[in-house]
Amino acid sequence: MKRPLTISSAVIKRLPRYRRFLRDLLRDGADRVSSARLGELTGYTPSQIRQDFNNFGGFGQQGYGYNVRDLYDSITAILGLDAERHMVIVGAGNLGRALAHFPWEQRDGVVVDGIFDNSPDAIGQNIGGFTVGDIDGLRAILKKLPQDVGVIATNRQGAQEACAVLVEGGVKGIWNFTTADLLLPDGVPAQNVHLNDSLHELLYRIAGGEQA
Amino acid sequence: MKRPLTISSAVIKRLPRYRRFLRDLLRDGADRVSSARLGELTGYTPSQIRQDFNNFGGFGQQGYGYNVRDLYDSITAILGLDAERHMVIVGAGNLGRALAHFPWEQRDGVVVDGIFDNSPDAIGQNIGGFTVGDIDGLRAILKKLPQDVGVIATNRQGAQEACAVLVEGGVKGIWNFTTADLLLPDGVPAQNVHLNDSLHELLYRIAGGEQA
Repeated sequence: MKRPLTISSAVIKRLPRYRRFLRDLLRDGADRVSSARLGELTGYTPSQIRQDFNNFGGFGQQGYGYNVRDLYDSITAILGLDAERHMVIVGAGNLGRALAHFPWEQRDGVVVDGIFDNSPDAIGQNIGGFTVGDIDGLRAILKKLPQDVGVIATNRQGAQEACAVLVEGGVKGIWNFTTADLLLPDGVPAQNVHLNDSLHELLYRIAGGEQA
Repeated sequence: MKRPLTISSAVIKRLPRYRRFLRDLLRDGADRVSSARLGELTGYTPSQIRQDFNNFGGFGQQGYGYNVRDLYDSITAILGLDAERHMVIVGAGNLGRALAHFPWEQRDGVVVDGIFDNSPDAIGQNIGGFTVGDIDGLRAILKKLPQDVGVIATNRQGAQEACAVLVEGGVKGIWNFTTADLLLPDGVPAQNVHLNDSLHELLYRIAGGEQA
């Protein structure tokens, strides 16, 4: 399957969700699935689903539906999950620790290669089988093993420095858990997970301000 | 200030970000700020910013800009952060632990009242000053102290059960960190943080599929 050059951001955001339900279907031994059934599972409309899948080639067949395996493999390839990916974590606080323990490998071939911190209290600790390294250790692993994702789980103040070391070491993208707005060179995307913003959005909705 | 009944989802998503930079400005002693300067800080265009703020009353003045304190207080009120909010966490794994340690109180008056789990290994452990309680303990605290937010940091399998106990106990909203699609009664919003989906989106972007 050819990888399309651009898929709209809205479609991309739906792909991991499709993939999750397709994986469940595979587990349950399903060979094929209709857009109607996928709609029930995902909450998207069948026409939305057909339109999304048309973006990367028509897999559906009238009266048959979609081949679950083909669809799953295609989405996996589009998301770049068909190859092993490597990830290092900077910041060995509770969040970094949680991310280091997350069973990424079991899920999608994402391998964590180490966790690093600049605090003397953290360095040398054992976290999920790793000894927390210092920043020189981070530089060394970036030299030795090319990394796809640099995770920033430091405090806000330390984020840009961590980012600079990761980018200099050649990571291809940054997964940022701090509220810092990172300065990045062109071609290195950052994906921000702002937990506080997410909580604030929930509190707004709780306060009765449902979203339009 | 009157709370508007509906603000579009896109605006709501930008409010926490505005608030974050306004807080920095307050810290730096700034009295007022122009939409141009806010644009530089947030990355939104000045006209977008003016339009967003018009949604909840015109605070800006020609040639003066916005009063930082007023704007900060208004956004704080809109997000429902002007009162203390209470939160319980279900799931005492690494993520639950990270969330229990997160300095919510310092930030926005969100108070964590406890962390609970159904695993004998977890129950009784000390996490961030709390003794991990069991599900009966969760029911008891929900009876004693009304809770705004129920955090679900269990595994996917345990999520719906945790959700049912939280909803029965009267929480006003669910902050869901699992990939489970929760069944919720009307009027109880769920905010989902799907870390895997976020990582997949980053991997897609790394693989060269920039978003349209």
